[in-house]
Amino acid sequence: MATDLPNILVMGPPLIFPDFQSQYSHSYNFLTFFASSLPLPQYLSSLNILPSSIRAILCNNMQRVPADLLRSLPSLALLVTTTMGTDHIDMPECRRLGVRVATAGGSFSEDVADFALGLLIDVLMRISAANRCAKKWLRSELPRNIPPASRVGGKRVGIVGLGKIGTEVAKRLEPFGCKIMYTSRTKKSSVPYPFYGSAVEVAAESDVLVVCCSLTEETHHIVDRAVMEALGKEGVIVNVGRGSLIDEKELVRRLVSGEIGGAGLDVFQNEPLVPCELLSLDNVVLSPHAAAVTSESFHHIMELVAATLHAFFENKPSLTPVMQD
Amino acid sequence: MATDLPNILVMGPPLIFPDFQSQYSHSYNFLTFFASSLPLPQYLSSLNILPSSIRAILCNNMQRVPADLLRSLPSLALLVTTTMGTDHIDMPECRRLGVRVATAGGSFSEDVADFALGLLIDVLMRISAANRCAKKWLRSELPRNIPPASRVGGKRVGIVGLGKIGTEVAKRLEPFGCKIMYTSRTKKSSVPYPFYGSAVEVAAESDVLVVCCSLTEETHHIVDRAVMEALGKEGVIVNVGRGSLIDEKELVRRLVSGEIGGAGLDVFQNEPLVPCELLSLDNVVLSPHAAAVTSESFHHIMELVAATLHAFFENKPSLTPVMQD
Repeated sequence: MATDLPNILVMGPPLIFPDFQSQYSHSYNFLTFFASSLPLPQYLSSLNILPSSIRAILCNNMQRVPADLLRSLPSLALLVTTTMGTDHIDMPECRRLGVRVATAGGSFSEDVADFALGLLIDVLMRISAANRCAKKWLRSELPRNIPPASRVGGKRVGIVGLGKIGTEVAKRLEPFGCKIMYTSRTKKSSVPYPFYGSAVEVAAESDVLVVCCSLTEETHHIVDRAVMEALGKEGVIVNVGRGSLIDEKELVRRLVSGEIGGAGLDVFQNEPLVPCELLSLDNVVLSPHAAAVTSESFHHIMELVAATLHAFFENKPSLTPVMQD
Repeated sequence: MATDLPNILVMGPPLIFPDFQSQYSHSYNFLTFFASSLPLPQYLSSLNILPSSIRAILCNNMQRVPADLLRSLPSLALLVTTTMGTDHIDMPECRRLGVRVATAGGSFSEDVADFALGLLIDVLMRISAANRCAKKWLRSELPRNIPPASRVGGKRVGIVGLGKIGTEVAKRLEPFGCKIMYTSRTKKSSVPYPFYGSAVEVAAESDVLVVCCSLTEETHHIVDRAVMEALGKEGVIVNVGRGSLIDEKELVRRLVSGEIGGAGLDVFQNEPLVPCELLSLDNVVLSPHAAAVTSESFHHIMELVAATLHAFFENKPSLTPVMQD
């Protein structure tokens, strides 16, 4: 299957990859490694492809890109991820090897913020629970057997990470009459919201925490036992960042025992595993890492990917967000 | 069971009625007619209560208050409904008989607007569908078998009825980057959104219709076949007004056949009956008339009810919204 076209190693396929593949199959030879159960060296030799022929990888957060894989491809120069985050990639190793990493940049920020609002309203106002309840809505069953809904207006919402997504979340919360506050690496002089130096401090003043920072060594389990304790037993947590931002085991324990009010979770610590204890709770809304999965964002990101690959193989400057660090 | 306390005929119990009843049982004799299967005359005589001893009714939208019932209570002077709408009450007859009708006024507007946003985001971004899907989120099942989500940003949203709720909906939609337009009885000079003279005209320019006008003879089936046709097959309808604002049979037909994109429905034509065809559709979010059912709004409304009853029986001016028309 060796061709004259540049080989692209596809490690994690974007949702609309089949369309993308057929559209660009005249330009690239896509190696669908994600569909194989072989280790990479055997996979490549089964196709009679030399590791040194691979200069670019296309990946997403469903598959890790570790140091040994990066080192096994001596000509690798570009890694394109269809995600905003890079926590699935060994970034220090990319830096050492001089591999450029192109991300989706802020392409998803607004969708993810919209989704965060959707989860927040859903958990507080019990929309998913109401949706299930509608099935058995018979007069005789009233009053409805779901936990009481709570008003969005007036809630104190603490944003953990006031980056692109967090800023969009804050903007959307304002007309709901929420009191917005945040914690972030640094205090932002451009926003009017109160800044707190740590997650535990912002949690102590909040009814709802919206977690939307990126996952780094520093932010791993940024929402831990102490933060949940500070948030209190009526508190609600919305997570549209990454699963490992939260001590999931502790969160699950508290949700089950009623030591926390509710949660809207789009991300989990061991995706695609969702803690099964959460599946039957009416104060929990779960979603399979879908916040950014709109038709519009995927078409946009695939255009970005195409532009990035084109620029790279034509030696043109890239128009898309590239992280060099 | 005749007492010296004023009799209050309770036709539809508010969700937190038991609390209310125990709190005010020293002031009023609550006749829990809603729990009886007898017709009103027999119910009253079974309690040895004269119809002429009843001066006030407490009701909600779960039970109609027809002319013959109103006429059977010769001393009736006050009807308190815990709802914003009065479509369950024979208002012309109340007017003729000089019965004052006290409503919840705007108490629920913000909650209902919040809920409308929740339904809108949920339907467009498939949150309820994602929530169901999370249960079977195993790697092997990706790509996820749910209809593609759609971005909220940039959507053209037509509001049907720019009253208290509609105005709150518009305010909340702005930071999402939606293009807002409306139809209403009259053009409002105070808002910047384009006005359309009819539901069909606003539908023709919209991706999403949010229906939040009150139900009157003029607005019955305001969203009819022609409006759905104009909205188009990708269009989404959110209804937080009343079920009969929409030709439900036509809507169900279109949802099932794919002639409309999706719906978020908190209200139905024949509550508590929910059309069973809708229960399995991933592009439909249903809720059992729960938009206003937050703990906060119910406590507030019960305070309003108490104040209204107190003012009435003490012959004081009412502090709560009362419709005289």
